[in-house]
Amino acid sequence: MNMKYFSKVLLVLAMISSFALNATAKEKVYKWKLAMTWPAQLTPLASPPQKLAALVKEMSNGQFIIEVHGKNKHKAPLGILDMVKLNQYQMGHSGSYYWKGKDINTLFFTSMPFGMNKDEQTAWFYYGGGLELMQKAYAKHKVYSFPGGNTGVQMGGWFRKEIKTADDLKGLKMRIPGFAGEIMSKMGVTVTNIPGGELYTALERGTIDALEWVGPGMDIKMGFHKVAPYYYTGWHEPASEMQYLVNIKAYKKLPKDLQAILTAAMKLTAYDMFSENFNDSVNAWVKMKKDYPNIKVKDFPRPVLKQMKKVNDELIAKLEAKGGLTKEIIESQRDYLKKSRQWTNISEYSYIKSMNELEK
Amino acid sequence: MNMKYFSKVLLVLAMISSFALNATAKEKVYKWKLAMTWPAQLTPLASPPQKLAALVKEMSNGQFIIEVHGKNKHKAPLGILDMVKLNQYQMGHSGSYYWKGKDINTLFFTSMPFGMNKDEQTAWFYYGGGLELMQKAYAKHKVYSFPGGNTGVQMGGWFRKEIKTADDLKGLKMRIPGFAGEIMSKMGVTVTNIPGGELYTALERGTIDALEWVGPGMDIKMGFHKVAPYYYTGWHEPASEMQYLVNIKAYKKLPKDLQAILTAAMKLTAYDMFSENFNDSVNAWVKMKKDYPNIKVKDFPRPVLKQMKKVNDELIAKLEAKGGLTKEIIESQRDYLKKSRQWTNISEYSYIKSMNELEK
Repeated sequence: MNMKYFSKVLLVLAMISSFALNATAKEKVYKWKLAMTWPAQLTPLASPPQKLAALVKEMSNGQFIIEVHGKNKHKAPLGILDMVKLNQYQMGHSGSYYWKGKDINTLFFTSMPFGMNKDEQTAWFYYGGGLELMQKAYAKHKVYSFPGGNTGVQMGGWFRKEIKTADDLKGLKMRIPGFAGEIMSKMGVTVTNIPGGELYTALERGTIDALEWVGPGMDIKMGFHKVAPYYYTGWHEPASEMQYLVNIKAYKKLPKDLQAILTAAMKLTAYDMFSENFNDSVNAWVKMKKDYPNIKVKDFPRPVLKQMKKVNDELIAKLEAKGGLTKEIIESQRDYLKKSRQWTNISEYSYIKSMNELEK
Repeated sequence: MNMKYFSKVLLVLAMISSFALNATAKEKVYKWKLAMTWPAQLTPLASPPQKLAALVKEMSNGQFIIEVHGKNKHKAPLGILDMVKLNQYQMGHSGSYYWKGKDINTLFFTSMPFGMNKDEQTAWFYYGGGLELMQKAYAKHKVYSFPGGNTGVQMGGWFRKEIKTADDLKGLKMRIPGFAGEIMSKMGVTVTNIPGGELYTALERGTIDALEWVGPGMDIKMGFHKVAPYYYTGWHEPASEMQYLVNIKAYKKLPKDLQAILTAAMKLTAYDMFSENFNDSVNAWVKMKKDYPNIKVKDFPRPVLKQMKKVNDELIAKLEAKGGLTKEIIESQRDYLKKSRQWTNISEYSYIKSMNELEK
């Protein structure tokens, strides 16, 4: 073997090696952390981020690892936005309306009383300009915000006594947080804030007269149906969409393929949460009614709802008067609700109405 | 430089090169073809496969390329199952009920008259055992079958005259294919099969008295609302789910990460089709009503629906009598419909009902 031959072999091998090192650089492993508002066991709310982490790992062939922390780990269930903003966590999973005290424009991206249902709101997000408005609202917090899973219509809550008139609400002690709590407060309800773990006992002992939680799938674990027989249908959270938060700088450092994988996994797991929750509620509702046949499902009487709607519209008018982005979001939601409800009525709604009439 | 030193350098470079060649092998590009029943322009039906191809390419960083062919390219809109089975195409996008003549068990995975709505059926697929039954039905065709996008409730169709009693259906000439066509036929309707491109003229000239298509988003392009003023609400396809078909052998040859990418992209684009179609219908319905204010939306009268339901139940009973997998699928769907409709009624349905009453 002469040196000239060796030189050629060396050159070829060096070229291949250079390619090999490039390939290694490209396969750098990205490790992220995600903080959830919920404990890891609280399905279906805690399902999307955990499914996302598994999907992202599989799709990236182990190149992108997301470690998911429940609230028992990070101890800051309502600190998610700040932690993601500061890149202590690259991602979060929470509810946009938790940040309304910090920034009123974040209120509108979970669900609004008397607002769009899940089909309407999802179409608004992805095809009606909603997602763009949400990014506008979150730009100043240096995070992206995406839909993170919808509960669909949340039930109006468990009541110990029937509500026949608006007067029956006056002086009632009820756990109902957020914007809906403000409405109830103006209806004369004493709105209380009791931690989840104490709610069952409070309702059982009559410390409170009523509370709202989510729907049969999540309510059944709390046991409220054992102590309050009236289950009211929804009005205040017709389509609660959870929220993914992503630190913008961290996102921009990802290679394009991992960005695409992350975005697809968020959208997929968000869509899928509705189906998981729907199925949970289907089964829980069958079981509740079998074990407690005296549960009475009630719609709030129309005059009561009318008054709540009036209070709601006054609160929204005050927000709209702020102008700017707040007004832009309110108008966009109002317009989309108005036009989409017409289609809902002649499609999904008419179908179920006709099928119900056949059973009569 | 001595030979010993060269040998060491050679060994190290050879090791790196071997790694490089492995990396190259791993990054082999997979090229697939997908055949759709629809022309490429027919959104939203043709949207999921085209979005899937873009997503898969992005997420795999160009390692997985899927070429999508519309019916104008492959000329066999109803040959999709066969082409995928034979691996002429690795994937297909179609409707499961098109194969009912070949295999009755494939009928049930699109939508059944008087059956589950989209939320119910989607939960049944992913959480209620539906997807497993679908794989069972398709195993003998050597393909996997997955949900490929839902239209939601399809309208009952455009009619030139109002249907007041079941007698008004007798002798009516209508384009309505498939299982629903069989029901209409037993109601005395003359069911005709006219190609899509000739439907408008046939309806305008009275060659036919009625037809069903999809819903406002797709109907508006056909122009039916210009020549038939009665638009009936849905009963026969309450949740038409399109279908992805995948050749099993081709799928098994993919590396695990590309399998995960493909599966996620199918599920995501399927979920997303509903939102796209919903938004299309929202906008089309506003436009139709503005341009043609005389359009009258009608529910079929309850006695007419009752008769159609009776015919439907008789046809289903005949199928159920075949036993085996057919019976298993029918029972699974009946059970899930029965329990899920209870939850639909107190959640999504009650909410819209209450909101509509507020407008009165």
